Amino acid sequence: MVKISVKEAKDKISAIFMNVGVNEDEAAIVADMLVQADQRGVHSHGILSTARYVRLIREGKMIPNMNANVLKDNGVVAVWDGNHSSGQVLGYRAMEDAMAKARKNGIGVVCVKGANHFGALAYYSQMAQKEGMIGISLGTGDSTMAPWGGCEKVIGNNPVCAAAPARNEVSPVLDMAMTVVANGKVSNMKRQGIKVLPEGWGLDREGVPTTNMDDYYTIAPMAGYKGWGMAVMVDIIAGTLFGGGTGDRAKDFAEGPSLMMMALDIKAFNDEEKYYRDVDARISELKASKLAKNSKGILMPGEIESEKFEVSEKTGLVEVLPENLKMVNDLADEMNMERIAVVE
Amino acid sequence: MVKISVKEAKDKISAIFMNVGVNEDEAAIVADMLVQADQRGVHSHGILSTARYVRLIREGKMIPNMNANVLKDNGVVAVWDGNHSSGQVLGYRAMEDAMAKARKNGIGVVCVKGANHFGALAYYSQMAQKEGMIGISLGTGDSTMAPWGGCEKVIGNNPVCAAAPARNEVSPVLDMAMTVVANGKVSNMKRQGIKVLPEGWGLDREGVPTTNMDDYYTIAPMAGYKGWGMAVMVDIIAGTLFGGGTGDRAKDFAEGPSLMMMALDIKAFNDEEKYYRDVDARISELKASKLAKNSKGILMPGEIESEKFEVSEKTGLVEVLPENLKMVNDLADEMNMERIAVVE
Repeated sequence: MVKISVKEAKDKISAIFMNVGVNEDEAAIVADMLVQADQRGVHSHGILSTARYVRLIREGKMIPNMNANVLKDNGVVAVWDGNHSSGQVLGYRAMEDAMAKARKNGIGVVCVKGANHFGALAYYSQMAQKEGMIGISLGTGDSTMAPWGGCEKVIGNNPVCAAAPARNEVSPVLDMAMTVVANGKVSNMKRQGIKVLPEGWGLDREGVPTTNMDDYYTIAPMAGYKGWGMAVMVDIIAGTLFGGGTGDRAKDFAEGPSLMMMALDIKAFNDEEKYYRDVDARISELKASKLAKNSKGILMPGEIESEKFEVSEKTGLVEVLPENLKMVNDLADEMNMERIAVVE
Repeated sequence: MVKISVKEAKDKISAIFMNVGVNEDEAAIVADMLVQADQRGVHSHGILSTARYVRLIREGKMIPNMNANVLKDNGVVAVWDGNHSSGQVLGYRAMEDAMAKARKNGIGVVCVKGANHFGALAYYSQMAQKEGMIGISLGTGDSTMAPWGGCEKVIGNNPVCAAAPARNEVSPVLDMAMTVVANGKVSNMKRQGIKVLPEGWGLDREGVPTTNMDDYYTIAPMAGYKGWGMAVMVDIIAGTLFGGGTGDRAKDFAEGPSLMMMALDIKAFNDEEKYYRDVDARISELKASKLAKNSKGILMPGEIESEKFEVSEKTGLVEVLPENLKMVNDLADEMNMERIAVVE
């Protein structure tokens, strides 16, 4: 790990996107999301994606400067066709709209078909969380997982994220894919030359569990048939429901992934003060309950990521993987722009 | 297993509830839900609960004949105080209202605090499914699970259910609790004298994994920290958000469990014909994908239950556990009413 300046990273990554035709606002949104993922320690969704997005834009598979059609909008629920604009800008704008709808109606739902790689869902759900709302986001991904009982990659790991605000306690953020572990984690292990996978992670080409990295083909669904079942429901709710791509059709160069953004405004459901009192009390009660033997503590979902983020915000520095930084700086070199400096 | 008549079971269980003061409509709703759970093979949520509900009614902990206050209702989202009416009637009426709201606004959400044991969520989500909507239901339960890293029972297994309609393929219904397996399953094994639990199911009083039934204290969350994280989010979304009970406060004799019913009307999101074409095609594509070695097939969530239900509807007979039938017939005897006859 190396440390770089948060501000410098955001500015220089913005500049890289502007260099390939992205306007200033959008470049800032995408750079903020990428750097924030690294600030939360989620390096698989951080600055690593810079090169991928630049490539997609150059290949005409990601259209800079959002050009979405509103297909349906009744003031409470809406469906957009993203027309292959940036997945992150679409997600950002869709959550903004979902929040505006929630302020009026208690709940707002904005669905986007024809999106693009959308990064870590936590960012979108946290947009609502920061505004005193519960944010729920889900999306379809291209085929990486086999069905329970199958062995062919036909369904995405279809992530789901829910975030709720607390006041004095850590605000929970659950951001999870339907596989036992992230694909990126296993790819990393493979690159590092690790030959043995933990029990229960991998399946071979015939769908038989394996711990041998050479035989590994797909990652098992989390909790077996439950993770498979959740992936199916996300496929339908965040995809088929509004004509969004699923499976191989969710690839960036096909119909693209699809997204559903939902915001629930606490004021429509409860007295706000009561909610914050209760949620703080509940989190504190759960965290103060008796620890298991040798346990390091009881953590809220997303607590580790939130702590990392806060440290990063305080110091103004963010840890990134050197190979990911190199990819960004290679782009900067190629574009005759300034490199991001390693601080530590 | 013994087989009894579906119609006779519904009629006689209705009569038992009416005998303790439940009106005809409500008795029919609850009897229908209980028998339907057995028809789907979910015996833990079937006629087994008859005696429990009669006891709760007699103890004044479940109030027959729904008496709910509407605390908030803006036409899209609503919050009710169930005042300890039947959890099943509250869930039924709340989903009816969520569906009415969805017909107008595309989505409808009805939350109920102060509910009571609500049985299998599948029933509520399937109410929406049968009307061409996506039904999502979630609820808080009393403390049965320890936090990830903890060993004290402080959180419910907080079930979630989503159901989506298909036309020519099986309509998926995912109904799951946040534990690796249902509590009822382990209790059954214990009663049967089984001494060894499968790996990964049980934790002892210190939160250490165990396969020894005598040491077993809590059931592990599904998928480890992910199941724990989901239980936390359900606690907040289907409880704290609108002042509903969580943990020990969700017990029947305390604040009671709470429920959130959500319906999404497909017509607000898509052309209905396109949705049904796409969902059928997607299900068929997933099911037709290559089977794993020794696999018996690729199943949609809830497919086994749906098949059982269809057979039961066709034959008019439902399989129940003899000990569960005995509990119902003991009540019938006590009330001087006719017993349910065993057909096979």
